[in-house]
Amino acid sequence: MRAPDRTNGAPTTVAVVGLGYWGPNLLRVLVEMADVRVRWICDLDPERLDRFQRRYPSLATTRYVNTVLDDPEVDAVFLATPVFTHFDLASRSLRAGKHTFVEKPLAPSSEMAEELRRIAAEHDLRLMCGHTFIYSPPVRALKRMLEREELGKVFFVSSSRVNLGLHQTDVSVVWDLGPHDFSILLYWLEEMPSSVRAVGRDSIVRGLPDVAFITLTFPSGILASVELSWLAPSKLRRTVVVGSEKMVVYDDGTSEPLRIFDHGVVYQDPETFGQYHLSYRTGDIVSPKVETYEPLSAELGDFIEALRSGVSLDWHTALGKNVVHITEAADRSLRDGGTEVSVRRELVAAVRHRALEGSAVEGFIP
Amino acid sequence: MRAPDRTNGAPTTVAVVGLGYWGPNLLRVLVEMADVRVRWICDLDPERLDRFQRRYPSLATTRYVNTVLDDPEVDAVFLATPVFTHFDLASRSLRAGKHTFVEKPLAPSSEMAEELRRIAAEHDLRLMCGHTFIYSPPVRALKRMLEREELGKVFFVSSSRVNLGLHQTDVSVVWDLGPHDFSILLYWLEEMPSSVRAVGRDSIVRGLPDVAFITLTFPSGILASVELSWLAPSKLRRTVVVGSEKMVVYDDGTSEPLRIFDHGVVYQDPETFGQYHLSYRTGDIVSPKVETYEPLSAELGDFIEALRSGVSLDWHTALGKNVVHITEAADRSLRDGGTEVSVRRELVAAVRHRALEGSAVEGFIP
Amino acid sequence: MRAPDRTNGAPTTVAVVGLGYWGPNLLRVLVEMADVRVRWICDLDPERLDRFQRRYPSLATTRYVNTVLDDPEVDAVFLATPVFTHFDLASRSLRAGKHTFVEKPLAPSSEMAEELRRIAAEHDLRLMCGHTFIYSPPVRALKRMLEREELGKVFFVSSSRVNLGLHQTDVSVVWDLGPHDFSILLYWLEEMPSSVRAVGRDSIVRGLPDVAFITLTFPSGILASVELSWLAPSKLRRTVVVGSEKMVVYDDGTSEPLRIFDHGVVYQDPETFGQYHLSYRTGDIVSPKVETYEPLSAELGDFIEALRSGVSLDWHTALGKNVVHITEAADRSLRDGGTEVSVRRELVAAVRHRALEGSAVEGFIP
Amino acid sequence: MRAPDRTNGAPTTVAVVGLGYWGPNLLRVLVEMADVRVRWICDLDPERLDRFQRRYPSLATTRYVNTVLDDPEVDAVFLATPVFTHFDLASRSLRAGKHTFVEKPLAPSSEMAEELRRIAAEHDLRLMCGHTFIYSPPVRALKRMLEREELGKVFFVSSSRVNLGLHQTDVSVVWDLGPHDFSILLYWLEEMPSSVRAVGRDSIVRGLPDVAFITLTFPSGILASVELSWLAPSKLRRTVVVGSEKMVVYDDGTSEPLRIFDHGVVYQDPETFGQYHLSYRTGDIVSPKVETYEPLSAELGDFIEALRSGVSLDWHTALGKNVVHITEAADRSLRDGGTEVSVRRELVAAVRHRALEGSAVEGFIP
Repeated sequence: MRAPDRTNGAPTTVAVVGLGYWGPNLLRVLVEMADVRVRWICDLDPERLDRFQRRYPSLATTRYVNTVLDDPEVDAVFLATPVFTHFDLASRSLRAGKHTFVEKPLAPSSEMAEELRRIAAEHDLRLMCGHTFIYSPPVRALKRMLEREELGKVFFVSSSRVNLGLHQTDVSVVWDLGPHDFSILLYWLEEMPSSVRAVGRDSIVRGLPDVAFITLTFPSGILASVELSWLAPSKLRRTVVVGSEKMVVYDDGTSEPLRIFDHGVVYQDPETFGQYHLSYRTGDIVSPKVETYEPLSAELGDFIEALRSGVSLDWHTALGKNVVHITEAADRSLRDGGTEVSVRRELVAAVRHRALEGSAVEGFIP
Repeated sequence: MRAPDRTNGAPTTVAVVGLGYWGPNLLRVLVEMADVRVRWICDLDPERLDRFQRRYPSLATTRYVNTVLDDPEVDAVFLATPVFTHFDLASRSLRAGKHTFVEKPLAPSSEMAEELRRIAAEHDLRLMCGHTFIYSPPVRALKRMLEREELGKVFFVSSSRVNLGLHQTDVSVVWDLGPHDFSILLYWLEEMPSSVRAVGRDSIVRGLPDVAFITLTFPSGILASVELSWLAPSKLRRTVVVGSEKMVVYDDGTSEPLRIFDHGVVYQDPETFGQYHLSYRTGDIVSPKVETYEPLSAELGDFIEALRSGVSLDWHTALGKNVVHITEAADRSLRDGGTEVSVRRELVAAVRHRALEGSAVEGFIP
Repeated sequence: MRAPDRTNGAPTTVAVVGLGYWGPNLLRVLVEMADVRVRWICDLDPERLDRFQRRYPSLATTRYVNTVLDDPEVDAVFLATPVFTHFDLASRSLRAGKHTFVEKPLAPSSEMAEELRRIAAEHDLRLMCGHTFIYSPPVRALKRMLEREELGKVFFVSSSRVNLGLHQTDVSVVWDLGPHDFSILLYWLEEMPSSVRAVGRDSIVRGLPDVAFITLTFPSGILASVELSWLAPSKLRRTVVVGSEKMVVYDDGTSEPLRIFDHGVVYQDPETFGQYHLSYRTGDIVSPKVETYEPLSAELGDFIEALRSGVSLDWHTALGKNVVHITEAADRSLRDGGTEVSVRRELVAAVRHRALEGSAVEGFIP
Repeated sequence: MRAPDRTNGAPTTVAVVGLGYWGPNLLRVLVEMADVRVRWICDLDPERLDRFQRRYPSLATTRYVNTVLDDPEVDAVFLATPVFTHFDLASRSLRAGKHTFVEKPLAPSSEMAEELRRIAAEHDLRLMCGHTFIYSPPVRALKRMLEREELGKVFFVSSSRVNLGLHQTDVSVVWDLGPHDFSILLYWLEEMPSSVRAVGRDSIVRGLPDVAFITLTFPSGILASVELSWLAPSKLRRTVVVGSEKMVVYDDGTSEPLRIFDHGVVYQDPETFGQYHLSYRTGDIVSPKVETYEPLSAELGDFIEALRSGVSLDWHTALGKNVVHITEAADRSLRDGGTEVSVRRELVAAVRHRALEGSAVEGFIP
């Protein structure tokens, strides 16, 4: 089944399924997109349906996802439902011939993620997973720096993603927050970690880890540390990338989200049989101007454009699947008390390709 | 051999051995202490000896530690030399009948640390290791909060001790910076970790780890994460302690070194067969007034008082030895690629005792 | 003419005039209020009307304010138009029998402000000026502290309201930003300044001051300094209130908008013919938990409630008029090169009264 | 009388008079300078003399300044005494043939300052006033930017110098803190203000202003605002310089003392009879690397070098005198309730000259 070509000027017709925490953001952005018509909102809770219909009176509402999938006018379905439903709903949506956007993580297991990719390919439909951070302007700006090798050789990455956050009842902090960091790392480093270790604790609810300290080892030698927590005094989304030439601090949500430190260590090889010499170099610190467009808007724009033009989103679903791989590995290590868990190397070449070719949103970035 | 009783009014006569990075601080504080007479400074580098004698003309200088140890007037020796010399110099100093203060870590192995304790006990001499942070006003203030159980149940501790720091040529970042965090953790938590894991990298000099991510698991269930690095864009000495009732951020060297967050999670047990309920509590944030005396001065004061009065410093050397235990374990784990390393439980009861009894410096703390 | 009593359950019907910078915020909040029906939006720009009708399809649009004023179903009109139109539009709206909400400042001169109050009183209609900051949670929390005299005697207030802001083409920075600070000062201090001085500069556009340094002297001896600028490297909305017992920093828009410093100076009177003694007291710093409701929502709620219940808003329009008084005085001083300009003392008693009685929104404040 | 030429290798012999708040800093720096011999310390308080002699046993002590002035070996005298003594002591020191360094302000009146300059010139002796801030690395770095006109046209300067500071018993906050800002402004702008206004309050001690808001108008059109206070919750030494091309924040004592904002307003002249257009430009923010030498050390080095080589310090004493002019004017305005006080224009050309020629310390600045 081929998705209907909508490039003849008719708007793309979409449905939003799930109006909990994130769904309303999808809805808000889609409603304001030109050439997109939101036809359905779907949620189990009638009160939510009422509330959003009052705000957007032209929307049709339903509690049954089948109503959405059976509507031949619907071109694309946006799923913002709990993780455990992702596979079931996305596979039904694809099989019903709808382009499908799934909130992160793509699926609760890498086998399911792979199966979704297979179904999408079989039906020649666009599938995308909502890794919004890789559309964030500072993340993209740092990606460009890495491509131009401005940091020199990357030694390690240290990230903290913590605050007094919303406890999820169905997934651990690793599944809730980890995919953000893992998607960013894959996007930046363009390689899969060879192994993952995680230590954590279920401080509040027995069996539900709410804090985790994760380390990832990459084949290139890069080391990454990721601290995730729903229990922290104040919000922090901070990633430090240390390279041989420069060091960068990415502090999401602040007025200076990127800070580039022209600092480094100068190493002189030992002469004859003498000792090596080290000296420190500290130069300027620069907060580059970073554009401030809304990442979600760029992401959904990419998806809509892809389903219209038919360009491949393979790199994107590969990323989504690999994020699930890493999250699985981290979760397993955490539950095994911190043992090393190997990760299969499957990051597709498309990720690197993507960065060179650019995309719809690239034009926004200086 | 019994240390001469100097409480009959004569000043305590001391020597400072090693005038590299830290020795000059010991010297400065000792020179200004009433009832202490610094007689010798000792260093291999004549230029350093000259420089400090110019500043303090009454000091005698020598390049030979034996000159110091042979001087019967010397009551106590302060060692601020490289780690690999600690055991040799401290054991010679004790055997020469001198009370001995050793910079941290106490020794390069726990066996050597234990042997130093044995020698000190045998000769009835005071031995102390320079864990200055446990004399730091904010560390002490937080210790008091923990004793009063103001944080509720402690869930985890997350610490970062990083900056573009001085590379040591003889020891890794774990031996250089780790003892600071480990001494603070032991002091606060009053328990030894059951196991330690560390992952790191030798970014600059082959074989010399300059960044490490360490996790410690304690028998009580407390989890601690310690990030150590000589490669970081800006200085950070920040420790977060998360408890069930309050959370505390200790940011060393800032104008508000302690920030107490009256935040928490309220857990309601499931009723009948329903689901549990969680809600968040965010209250005031308080930066308590913390005294600003110099920790090193308080520490050296404690040592001098102990050698005069003859009170035991057993709790202190036990702490020093246990810090070496943990550092060894972390170093081994790092070199083994992150495997779990068990730690023997040997924290002496004196640590808890100490906190209740107070010490010379306690009076300074509100 | 008496405003129709709408308390019999029918929704209050309103119109929003002006959809430039601020009008859309009024519209958004009004649309979401229960028991309020937005019937008209009015703007000269048809493109804006289209855009907002697309978002809220049930709205009627017009370019003619008379269409709004002639509609007998309209109970209240919200004016978010340029300052120079405030008097004309508000007086026409009141004369048409509509309760009227005017964005700040109430009018471009104090005579006009007084005349608007007179017309509203004559027709027994509610008139309100949009001084949103006095509904801001931290401003209210500090007001409570001042009422309880927790700061002791207030000595002075120092405020900065600067950033690379939107230049207005019709009014100076004094008329644009000054009313925010002046309304807050009146609300907190409950007294009118006796005189105002202002020095400024028209850096960019000749004749249009874009930076101003204003000082206000109050009869009680309190001194206030207000820095206003459209030319500043980073956004700052920071007010420091220094009292004899405590000092408070109000930093609008930050995660800790109020910081209370338990600091002060202890003065001891001279004994016999000796000298006085001063000592410093520095205690804890507290960031109290402050509620986070939207001030605009509370403000509009107060207005809607008043027009339904018929309670007086006299204190509010008195505040609005007095803000115009001070702004006029500051503007005159600035144009006269900084000379002292006296201000008539006319703050009505109702302001103090208000604070004791509370209002709809008070319930939100701890 | 000509100062003895000491360039034949003999050290310069000096005396420090006054060991209160600042004198010990002078002493510390002088003691460590090569080719300088501190012979005398002089203070009325014998306890202070004892304390510092214990630290520096080679110093001679005296309570009588005449002892110092009568010593023919003394080449230069450093005065760190209360303001009201500056004229008397400095004139006696100069008349005794000693090069003289006076802490800021140079004298309690501009007439006295001028008279000191006259006496120094008459005796061909070096006179310097301790305006240490103009030796501060960030102040110098910004000076260089201004010389290269990197900020474009300077519009205004806004400065705050506040904290819970030491109340002086003899001088107001204007005389205590104002000279810092005034010296920096003169150094940067190379012009005298045409008029000064100040409003303040004596919050704690009757008759002794402890807070002041000062505005200075310069002939070039530049406006400067200076907030001074001994009553503030936290320390702030922050100056913002706003130019047409860039804006700079100088935050003394922080890890990034200079922050350069590549922000501005783009003004397009009105075409035909249309309206002008404004747009905003926000670019990168740069914290340039700034050297970290001690300003006091550079300042005293300059003085010592001048008395050896005989180069003129006229630009420096002219600066010192002009600072006194401005301080007098600000103090008078404050006491007159904020009236405008004119300032004579007397900044000597040497200040501009100086900046181009460089000085001993310039070499330290990148």
